[in-house]
Amino acid sequence: MKEKKEIIINDLLNYNNLKIIQNKDYFNFSLDSVLLPNFVLLSPNTKNILDLCTGNAPIPLILSTKTKANIIGVEIQKEIYDLAKKSIKLNNINSISLINDDVKNITKKFETDSFDIITCNPPYFKCNENSILNDNDIKSIARHELKVNIEDIIRISKKLLKNGGSLNIVHRTDRLIEIIDLMKKNNLEPKRIQFIYPKKNNDSNIVLIDGRKNGKPGLKILKPLIVHNEDGSYTKEVLNLFGGN
Amino acid sequence: MKEKKEIIINDLLNYNNLKIIQNKDYFNFSLDSVLLPNFVLLSPNTKNILDLCTGNAPIPLILSTKTKANIIGVEIQKEIYDLAKKSIKLNNINSISLINDDVKNITKKFETDSFDIITCNPPYFKCNENSILNDNDIKSIARHELKVNIEDIIRISKKLLKNGGSLNIVHRTDRLIEIIDLMKKNNLEPKRIQFIYPKKNNDSNIVLIDGRKNGKPGLKILKPLIVHNEDGSYTKEVLNLFGGN
Repeated sequence: MKEKKEIIINDLLNYNNLKIIQNKDYFNFSLDSVLLPNFVLLSPNTKNILDLCTGNAPIPLILSTKTKANIIGVEIQKEIYDLAKKSIKLNNINSISLINDDVKNITKKFETDSFDIITCNPPYFKCNENSILNDNDIKSIARHELKVNIEDIIRISKKLLKNGGSLNIVHRTDRLIEIIDLMKKNNLEPKRIQFIYPKKNNDSNIVLIDGRKNGKPGLKILKPLIVHNEDGSYTKEVLNLFGGN
Repeated sequence: MKEKKEIIINDLLNYNNLKIIQNKDYFNFSLDSVLLPNFVLLSPNTKNILDLCTGNAPIPLILSTKTKANIIGVEIQKEIYDLAKKSIKLNNINSISLINDDVKNITKKFETDSFDIITCNPPYFKCNENSILNDNDIKSIARHELKVNIEDIIRISKKLLKNGGSLNIVHRTDRLIEIIDLMKKNNLEPKRIQFIYPKKNNDSNIVLIDGRKNGKPGLKILKPLIVHNEDGSYTKEVLNLFGGN
Protein backbone atom coordinates (compact mmCIF):
# COMPACT_ATOMS: atom_id res chain seq x y z
CA MET A 1 0.00 0.00 0.00
CA LYS A 2 2.79 2.39 0.94
CA GLU A 3 4.33 2.11 -2.48
CA LYS A 4 1.33 3.79 -4.03
CA LYS A 5 2.16 7.05 -2.30
CA GLU A 6 5.62 7.29 -3.78
CA ILE A 7 5.74 9.79 -6.57
CA ILE A 8 8.38 10.65 -9.08
CA ILE A 9 9.21 14.32 -9.30
CA ASN A 10 10.35 15.10 -12.78
CA ASP A 11 8.69 18.40 -13.42
CA LEU A 12 10.63 20.55 -10.99
CA LEU A 13 14.18 19.76 -11.93
CA ASN A 14 15.73 19.80 -15.30
CA TYR A 15 19.34 18.96 -14.42
CA ASN A 16 19.94 16.47 -17.22
CA ASN A 17 16.38 15.25 -16.70
CA LEU A 18 17.05 14.20 -13.13
CA LYS A 19 14.18 12.35 -11.46
CA ILE A 20 13.73 12.23 -7.69
CA ILE A 21 11.38 9.83 -5.91
CA GLN A 22 9.66 11.00 -2.78
CA ASN A 23 6.82 10.01 -0.53
CA LYS A 24 4.47 12.72 0.65
CA ASP A 25 3.96 10.95 3.97
CA TYR A 26 7.64 11.50 4.85
CA PHE A 27 8.55 14.92 3.58
CA ASN A 28 8.97 16.66 0.27
CA PHE A 29 12.32 17.94 -0.79
CA SER A 30 12.27 21.67 -0.94
CA LEU A 31 13.92 24.70 -2.43
CA ASP A 32 16.62 24.37 0.24
CA SER A 33 17.84 21.14 -1.37
CA VAL A 34 18.23 22.92 -4.70
CA LEU A 35 19.91 25.99 -3.22
CA LEU A 36 22.67 24.12 -1.39
CA PRO A 37 24.26 22.18 -4.31
CA ASN A 38 24.14 25.37 -6.38
CA PHE A 39 25.96 27.25 -3.61
CA VAL A 40 28.82 24.73 -3.30
CA LEU A 41 32.09 25.74 -4.97
CA LEU A 42 33.29 22.77 -7.04
CA SER A 43 36.64 22.51 -8.78
CA PRO A 44 38.36 19.90 -10.96
CA ASN A 45 40.27 18.93 -7.79
CA THR A 46 37.09 18.02 -5.92
CA LYS A 47 37.41 14.25 -5.49
CA ASN A 48 35.31 13.26 -2.49
CA ILE A 49 32.04 14.72 -1.26
CA LEU A 50 30.00 13.64 1.76
CA ASP A 51 26.33 14.59 2.18
CA LEU A 52 25.07 14.20 5.76
CA CYS A 53 21.33 13.77 6.43
CA THR A 54 20.92 13.10 2.75
CA GLY A 55 17.19 12.26 2.83
CA ASN A 56 16.02 11.09 -0.58
CA ALA A 57 19.38 12.32 -1.91
CA PRO A 58 18.44 15.48 -3.83
CA ILE A 59 21.80 17.10 -3.00
CA PRO A 60 23.97 14.20 -4.23
CA LEU A 61 21.78 13.89 -7.33
CA ILE A 62 22.12 17.55 -8.27
CA LEU A 63 25.83 17.59 -7.44
CA SER A 64 26.37 14.53 -9.65
CA THR A 65 25.33 16.60 -12.68
CA LYS A 66 28.02 19.18 -11.88
CA THR A 67 31.08 17.15 -10.85
CA LYS A 68 32.78 13.81 -11.47
CA ALA A 69 33.67 13.52 -7.75
CA ASN A 70 32.61 10.51 -5.69
CA ILE A 71 29.61 11.43 -3.58
CA ILE A 72 28.53 9.58 -0.46
CA GLY A 73 25.13 10.24 1.14
CA VAL A 74 24.31 9.21 4.71
CA GLU A 75 20.71 8.68 5.83
CA ILE A 76 19.64 7.19 9.16
CA GLN A 77 16.05 6.29 8.21
CA LYS A 78 15.68 3.04 6.28
CA GLU A 79 12.46 4.08 4.52
CA ILE A 80 14.01 7.27 3.14
CA TYR A 81 17.33 5.58 2.36
CA ASP A 82 15.35 3.08 0.25
CA LEU A 83 13.76 5.92 -1.73
CA ALA A 84 17.18 7.48 -2.30
CA LYS A 85 18.51 4.12 -3.56
CA LYS A 86 15.65 3.90 -6.04
CA SER A 87 16.22 7.45 -7.32
CA ILE A 88 19.89 6.81 -7.92
CA LYS A 89 19.11 3.59 -9.80
CA LEU A 90 16.36 5.30 -11.78
CA ASN A 91 18.77 8.01 -12.90
CA ASN A 92 21.51 5.46 -13.59
CA ILE A 93 24.15 7.41 -11.67
CA ASN A 94 27.33 5.59 -10.65
CA SER A 95 29.15 8.32 -8.75
CA ILE A 96 26.80 8.26 -5.73
CA SER A 97 26.86 5.68 -2.96
CA LEU A 98 24.62 5.61 0.08
CA ILE A 99 25.08 4.58 3.71
CA ASN A 100 22.10 3.74 5.90
CA ASP A 101 23.43 4.74 9.32
CA ASP A 102 23.44 7.38 12.02
CA VAL A 103 25.77 10.21 10.96
CA LYS A 104 27.29 10.00 14.44
CA ASN A 105 28.79 6.62 13.48
CA ILE A 106 30.31 7.97 10.31
CA THR A 107 33.63 9.11 11.79
CA LYS A 108 34.39 5.44 12.52
CA LYS A 109 33.96 4.53 8.85
CA PHE A 110 36.35 7.04 7.29
CA GLU A 111 39.84 8.30 7.99
CA THR A 112 40.09 11.88 9.26
CA ASP A 113 40.86 14.41 6.49
CA SER A 114 39.04 12.35 3.84
CA PHE A 115 36.67 14.81 2.15
CA ASP A 116 37.06 17.95 0.04
CA ILE A 117 33.46 18.98 0.57
CA ILE A 118 30.76 18.12 3.09
CA THR A 119 27.17 19.22 2.52
CA CYS A 120 24.25 19.08 4.92
CA ASN A 121 20.60 20.10 4.98
CA PRO A 122 20.07 19.15 8.62
CA PRO A 123 16.95 19.01 10.80
CA TYR A 124 16.13 22.68 11.44
CA PHE A 125 14.33 22.65 14.77
CA LYS A 126 15.70 22.34 18.28
CA CYS A 127 14.12 19.81 20.60
CA ASN A 128 12.98 20.76 24.04
CA GLU A 129 10.16 19.75 26.34
CA ASN A 130 7.87 22.19 24.53
CA SER A 131 8.51 20.78 21.06
CA ILE A 132 5.30 19.62 19.47
CA LEU A 133 6.64 16.76 17.43
CA ASN A 134 4.93 15.42 14.39
CA ASP A 135 3.24 12.16 15.26
CA ASN A 136 4.75 10.67 12.14
CA ASP A 137 8.19 9.70 13.46
CA ILE A 138 9.85 9.78 10.06
CA LYS A 139 8.92 13.42 9.57
CA SER A 140 9.90 14.34 13.13
CA ILE A 141 13.38 12.86 12.74
CA ALA A 142 13.89 14.68 9.44
CA ARG A 143 12.77 18.02 10.85
CA HIS A 144 13.83 18.06 14.52
CA GLU A 145 17.20 17.58 16.15
CA LEU A 146 16.14 14.23 17.64
CA LYS A 147 19.00 12.11 16.32
CA VAL A 148 21.60 14.70 15.38
CA ASN A 149 22.07 18.41 16.05
CA ILE A 150 24.03 21.16 14.37
CA GLU A 151 26.92 20.79 16.82
CA ASP A 152 27.27 17.09 15.89
CA ILE A 153 27.33 18.00 12.17
CA ILE A 154 30.05 20.60 12.70
CA ARG A 155 32.21 18.33 14.90
CA ILE A 156 31.94 15.43 12.44
CA SER A 157 32.83 17.76 9.57
CA LYS A 158 35.87 19.09 11.40
CA LYS A 159 37.21 15.53 11.64
CA LEU A 160 36.36 14.34 8.15
CA LEU A 161 37.26 17.41 6.06
CA LYS A 162 40.70 17.79 4.55
CA ASN A 163 42.68 20.88 5.51
CA GLY A 164 41.06 23.72 3.55
CA GLY A 165 38.00 21.57 2.87
CA SER A 166 34.57 23.16 2.91
CA LEU A 167 31.44 22.48 4.98
CA ASN A 168 28.30 23.78 3.25
CA ILE A 169 25.13 24.03 5.32
CA VAL A 170 21.66 25.32 4.60
CA HIS A 171 19.74 26.35 7.73
CA ARG A 172 17.23 28.76 9.21
CA THR A 173 18.58 32.29 9.41
CA ASP A 174 17.58 32.73 13.06
CA ARG A 175 20.17 30.11 14.01
CA LEU A 176 23.06 31.75 12.17
CA ILE A 177 24.87 33.16 15.21
CA GLU A 178 24.92 29.74 16.89
CA ILE A 179 26.27 28.14 13.69
CA ILE A 180 29.02 30.76 13.27
CA ASP A 181 29.96 30.35 16.92
CA LEU A 182 30.20 26.55 16.62
CA MET A 183 32.14 26.78 13.35
CA LYS A 184 34.68 29.18 14.91
CA LYS A 185 35.12 26.88 17.94
CA ASN A 186 35.81 23.98 15.57
CA ASN A 187 38.29 25.81 13.31
CA LEU A 188 35.86 26.08 10.43
CA GLU A 189 36.12 29.68 9.25
CA PRO A 190 32.94 31.09 7.68
CA LYS A 191 34.09 32.31 4.24
CA ARG A 192 30.91 32.66 2.17
CA ILE A 193 27.34 33.27 3.29
CA GLN A 194 24.24 33.86 1.17
CA PHE A 195 20.89 34.97 2.53
CA ILE A 196 17.58 33.88 1.03
CA TYR A 197 14.62 36.26 1.38
CA PRO A 198 11.02 35.14 0.69
CA LYS A 199 10.30 38.57 -0.88
CA LYS A 200 12.42 41.68 -1.30
CA ASN A 201 10.87 43.46 1.69
CA ASN A 202 10.99 40.44 4.04
CA ASP A 203 13.59 39.39 6.58
CA SER A 204 15.73 36.46 5.47
CA ASN A 205 14.42 33.02 6.48
CA ILE A 206 17.08 30.71 5.02
CA VAL A 207 20.88 30.99 4.95
CA LEU A 208 23.66 29.15 3.11
CA ILE A 209 27.04 28.96 4.87
CA ASP A 210 30.46 27.79 3.63
CA GLY A 211 33.01 27.20 6.42
CA ARG A 212 36.59 26.21 5.58
CA LYS A 213 38.71 23.98 7.79
CA ASN A 214 41.57 26.12 9.15
CA GLY A 215 40.63 28.91 6.71
CA LYS A 216 41.88 32.48 7.12
CA PRO A 217 39.39 35.10 8.35
CA GLY A 218 37.63 37.17 5.67
CA LEU A 219 33.97 36.80 4.84
CA LYS A 220 31.98 37.31 1.65
CA ILE A 221 28.24 37.91 1.81
CA LEU A 222 27.04 36.90 -1.64
CA LYS A 223 24.29 38.75 -3.49
CA PRO A 224 20.85 38.37 -1.90
CA LEU A 225 18.54 35.76 -3.37
CA ILE A 226 14.86 36.75 -3.43
CA VAL A 227 12.49 33.79 -3.93
CA HIS A 228 9.19 35.42 -4.86
CA ASN A 229 8.14 38.50 -6.79
CA GLU A 230 5.58 40.78 -5.15
CA ASP A 231 2.77 38.90 -6.96
CA GLY A 232 3.92 35.59 -5.44
CA SER A 233 5.44 34.14 -8.61
CA TYR A 234 9.02 32.83 -8.54
CA THR A 235 11.76 35.31 -9.40
CA LYS A 236 13.90 34.82 -12.49
CA GLU A 237 16.88 33.86 -10.29
CA VAL A 238 14.96 30.99 -8.68
CA LEU A 239 13.51 29.78 -11.97
CA ASN A 240 17.08 29.69 -13.31
CA LEU A 241 18.06 27.39 -10.44
CA PHE A 242 15.25 24.99 -11.23
CA GLY A 243 16.06 25.15 -14.91
CA GLY A 244 19.61 23.92 -14.26
CA ASN A 245 22.76 25.88 -14.99
CA MET B 1 43.00 79.67 5.39
CA LYS B 2 41.68 76.32 6.64
CA GLU B 3 38.28 77.83 7.32
CA LYS B 4 37.76 78.41 3.62
CA LYS B 5 37.65 74.69 2.94
CA GLU B 6 34.80 74.08 5.33
CA ILE B 7 31.59 73.56 3.47
CA ILE B 8 28.04 73.27 4.61
CA ILE B 9 26.22 70.25 3.30
CA ASN B 10 22.59 71.09 3.01
CA ASP B 11 21.68 69.45 -0.22
CA LEU B 12 22.05 65.82 0.80
CA LEU B 13 19.94 65.67 3.89
CA ASN B 14 16.45 66.86 4.36
CA TYR B 15 15.86 65.79 7.94
CA ASN B 16 14.14 68.92 9.16
CA ASN B 17 16.57 70.89 6.99
CA LEU B 18 19.58 69.59 8.89
CA LYS B 19 22.90 71.16 7.91
CA ILE B 20 26.23 69.44 8.46
CA ILE B 21 29.57 71.20 8.21
CA GLN B 22 32.51 69.26 6.93
CA ASN B 23 36.00 69.85 5.63
CA LYS B 24 37.06 68.01 2.51
CA ASP B 25 40.65 67.79 3.80
CA TYR B 26 39.52 65.62 6.71
CA PHE B 27 36.88 63.30 5.37
CA ASN B 28 33.37 63.53 4.08
CA PHE B 29 30.55 61.88 5.90
CA SER B 30 29.15 59.12 3.83
CA LEU B 31 26.11 56.99 3.23
CA ASP B 32 27.19 54.87 6.24
CA SER B 33 26.45 57.77 8.57
CA VAL B 34 22.92 58.01 7.19
CA LEU B 35 22.30 54.26 7.28
CA LEU B 36 23.21 53.78 10.94
CA PRO B 37 20.78 56.24 12.62
CA ASN B 38 18.01 54.92 10.36
CA PHE B 39 18.80 51.36 11.49
CA VAL B 40 18.65 52.15 15.23
CA LEU B 41 15.43 51.08 17.01
CA LEU B 42 14.24 54.04 19.08
CA SER B 43 11.38 53.98 21.57
CA PRO B 44 9.72 56.54 23.84
CA ASN B 45 11.79 54.96 26.64
CA THR B 46 15.09 55.82 24.95
CA LYS B 47 16.60 58.40 27.30
CA ASN B 48 20.37 58.33 26.76
CA ILE B 49 22.35 57.71 23.60
CA LEU B 50 26.13 57.66 23.19
CA ASP B 51 27.80 58.00 19.77
CA LEU B 52 31.43 56.87 19.77
CA CYS B 53 33.84 58.17 17.09
CA THR B 54 31.24 60.77 16.25
CA GLY B 55 33.29 62.70 13.68
CA ASN B 56 31.42 65.80 12.57
CA ALA B 57 28.37 64.38 14.35
CA PRO B 58 26.13 63.24 11.48
CA ILE B 59 24.72 60.37 13.56
CA PRO B 60 23.74 62.51 16.60
CA LEU B 61 22.30 65.15 14.25
CA ILE B 62 20.09 62.68 12.38
CA LEU B 63 19.09 60.90 15.62
CA SER B 64 18.09 64.25 17.15
CA THR B 65 15.36 64.60 14.52
CA LYS B 66 13.90 61.22 15.54
CA THR B 67 14.07 61.19 19.35
CA LYS B 68 13.95 63.49 22.36
CA ALA B 69 16.70 61.47 24.09
CA ASN B 70 19.92 63.07 25.29
CA ILE B 71 22.69 62.32 22.82
CA ILE B 72 26.38 62.49 23.62
CA GLY B 73 29.00 62.36 20.87
CA VAL B 74 32.66 61.56 21.54
CA GLU B 75 35.39 62.65 19.12
CA ILE B 76 39.13 62.43 19.78
CA GLN B 77 40.28 64.90 17.10
CA LYS B 78 39.99 68.56 18.07
CA GLU B 79 39.65 69.82 14.48
CA ILE B 80 36.70 67.53 13.76
CA TYR B 81 35.16 68.07 17.20
CA ASP B 82 35.19 71.82 16.42
CA LEU B 83 33.29 71.21 13.17
CA ALA B 84 30.74 69.11 15.02
CA LYS B 85 30.28 71.89 17.58
CA LYS B 86 29.62 74.36 14.78
CA SER B 87 27.06 72.09 13.11
CA ILE B 88 25.13 71.60 16.32
CA LYS B 89 25.07 75.35 16.94
CA LEU B 90 24.08 76.05 13.32
CA ASN B 91 21.11 73.67 13.63
CA ASN B 92 20.22 75.04 17.05
CA ILE B 93 19.92 71.60 18.63
CA ASN B 94 19.96 71.35 22.43
CA SER B 95 19.74 67.58 22.91
CA ILE B 96 23.29 66.88 21.70
CA SER B 97 26.43 67.41 23.75
CA LEU B 98 29.97 66.67 22.64
CA ILE B 99 33.10 65.40 24.39
CA ASN B 100 36.53 65.94 22.89
CA ASP B 101 38.41 62.93 24.22
CA ASP B 102 39.70 59.46 23.45
CA VAL B 103 36.79 57.00 23.63
CA LYS B 104 39.04 54.80 25.78
CA ASN B 105 38.74 57.39 28.56
CA ILE B 106 34.97 57.46 28.37
CA THR B 107 34.29 54.63 30.83
CA LYS B 108 35.83 56.84 33.53
CA LYS B 109 33.34 59.61 32.83
CA PHE B 110 30.10 57.64 33.13
CA GLU B 111 28.63 55.07 35.48
CA THR B 112 28.33 51.55 34.11
CA ASP B 113 24.82 50.75 32.75
CA SER B 114 24.19 54.38 31.73
CA PHE B 115 23.01 54.20 28.11
CA ASP B 116 20.01 52.75 26.30
CA ILE B 117 21.72 52.93 22.94
CA ILE B 118 25.31 53.23 21.75
CA THR B 119 26.08 53.93 18.10
CA CYS B 120 29.43 53.81 16.33
CA ASN B 121 30.76 54.28 12.82
CA PRO B 122 34.33 53.30 13.72
CA PRO B 123 37.58 53.36 11.72
CA TYR B 124 37.21 50.48 9.27
CA PHE B 125 40.76 49.40 8.58
CA LYS B 126 43.12 47.31 10.67
CA CYS B 127 46.63 48.61 11.23
CA ASN B 128 49.64 46.48 10.61
CA GLU B 129 53.19 47.04 9.37
CA ASN B 130 51.89 46.92 5.79
CA SER B 131 49.23 49.59 6.25
CA ILE B 132 49.79 52.45 3.86
CA LEU B 133 48.47 55.27 5.98
CA ASN B 134 47.22 58.50 4.60
CA ASP B 135 49.84 61.19 5.13
CA ASN B 136 47.09 63.44 6.43
CA ASP B 137 46.96 62.28 10.05
CA ILE B 138 43.40 63.42 10.60
CA LYS B 139 42.15 61.20 7.80
CA SER B 140 44.31 58.27 8.95
CA ILE B 141 42.92 58.40 12.49
CA ALA B 142 39.37 58.52 11.20
CA ARG B 143 39.85 55.59 8.84
CA HIS B 144 42.36 53.26 10.52
CA GLU B 145 42.36 51.58 13.91
CA LEU B 146 45.23 53.77 15.14
CA LYS B 147 43.60 55.10 18.31
CA VAL B 148 40.74 52.68 18.84
CA ASN B 149 39.79 49.28 17.43
CA ILE B 150 36.55 47.33 17.22
CA GLU B 151 37.39 45.31 20.33
CA ASP B 152 37.75 48.54 22.35
CA ILE B 153 34.36 49.76 21.09
CA ILE B 154 32.65 46.51 22.06
CA ARG B 155 34.29 46.36 25.51
CA ILE B 156 33.40 49.98 26.26
CA SER B 157 29.82 49.37 25.12
CA LYS B 158 29.48 46.31 27.33
CA LYS B 159 30.32 48.48 30.34
CA LEU B 160 28.24 51.52 29.49
CA LEU B 161 25.05 49.92 28.13
CA LYS B 162 22.12 49.22 30.41
CA ASN B 163 20.93 45.62 30.62
CA GLY B 164 19.06 45.02 27.34
CA GLY B 165 20.65 48.13 25.81
CA SER B 166 21.67 48.08 22.18
CA LEU B 167 25.04 48.62 20.44
CA ASN B 168 24.59 49.62 16.80
CA ILE B 169 27.63 49.46 14.55
CA VAL B 170 28.16 50.07 10.84
CA HIS B 171 31.22 48.30 9.46
CA ARG B 172 32.75 46.53 6.47
CA THR B 173 31.06 43.21 5.76
CA ASP B 174 34.35 41.32 5.53
CA ARG B 175 34.89 41.93 9.25
CA LEU B 176 31.49 40.61 10.35
CA ILE B 177 32.66 37.29 11.78
CA GLU B 178 35.22 39.03 14.00
CA ILE B 179 32.55 41.48 15.22
CA ILE B 180 30.03 38.70 16.00
CA ASP B 181 32.76 36.77 17.81
CA LEU B 182 33.72 39.80 19.95
CA MET B 183 30.08 40.64 20.68
CA LYS B 184 29.37 37.08 21.84
CA LYS B 185 32.46 37.11 24.09
CA ASN B 186 31.22 40.37 25.65
CA ASN B 187 27.60 39.25 26.21
CA LEU B 188 26.25 41.42 23.41
CA GLU B 189 23.89 39.14 21.46
CA PRO B 190 23.56 40.00 17.76
CA LYS B 191 19.79 40.44 17.27
CA ARG B 192 19.41 42.40 14.00
CA ILE B 193 21.73 42.58 11.01
CA GLN B 194 21.20 44.33 7.69
CA PHE B 195 23.44 43.94 4.68
CA ILE B 196 24.10 46.73 2.19
CA TYR B 197 24.89 45.75 -1.40
CA PRO B 198 26.36 48.25 -3.93
CA LYS B 199 24.19 46.70 -6.68
CA LYS B 200 21.81 43.75 -6.67
CA ASN B 201 24.33 41.34 -8.19
CA ASN B 202 27.26 42.41 -5.96
CA ASP B 203 28.53 40.96 -2.71
CA SER B 204 27.67 43.05 0.34
CA ASN B 205 30.29 45.65 1.31
CA ILE B 206 28.70 47.27 4.36
CA VAL B 207 26.83 45.77 7.31
CA LEU B 208 24.70 47.17 10.14
CA ILE B 209 24.66 45.20 13.41
CA ASP B 210 22.52 45.56 16.54
CA GLY B 211 23.87 43.66 19.58
CA ARG B 212 21.89 43.60 22.85
CA LYS B 213 23.52 43.42 26.26
CA ASN B 214 22.59 40.03 27.79
CA GLY B 215 20.06 39.48 24.97
CA LYS B 216 18.57 36.08 24.21
CA PRO B 217 19.80 34.27 21.08
CA GLY B 218 17.66 34.70 17.94
CA LEU B 219 18.76 36.72 14.93
CA LYS B 220 16.87 38.69 12.32
CA ILE B 221 18.50 39.46 8.97
CA LEU B 222 16.57 42.48 7.73
CA LYS B 223 15.64 42.99 4.08
CA PRO B 224 18.64 43.66 1.83
CA LEU B 225 19.41 47.27 0.98
CA ILE B 226 20.66 47.82 -2.57
CA VAL B 227 22.37 51.20 -3.07
CA HIS B 228 22.53 51.59 -6.85
CA ASN B 229 20.37 50.59 -9.77
CA GLU B 230 22.08 48.87 -12.69
CA ASP B 231 22.52 52.26 -14.42
CA GLY B 232 24.41 53.63 -11.37
CA SER B 233 21.62 55.88 -10.10
CA TYR B 234 20.51 55.59 -6.47
CA THR B 235 17.68 53.16 -5.72
CA LYS B 236 14.36 54.42 -4.42
CA GLU B 237 15.15 52.94 -0.97
CA VAL B 238 18.34 55.00 -0.65
CA LEU B 239 16.73 58.17 -1.95
CA ASN B 240 14.04 57.69 0.70
CA LEU B 241 16.74 57.62 3.39
CA PHE B 242 18.19 60.87 2.17
CA GLY B 243 14.76 62.37 1.92
CA GLY B 244 14.15 61.74 5.62
CA ASN B 245 11.47 59.53 7.03
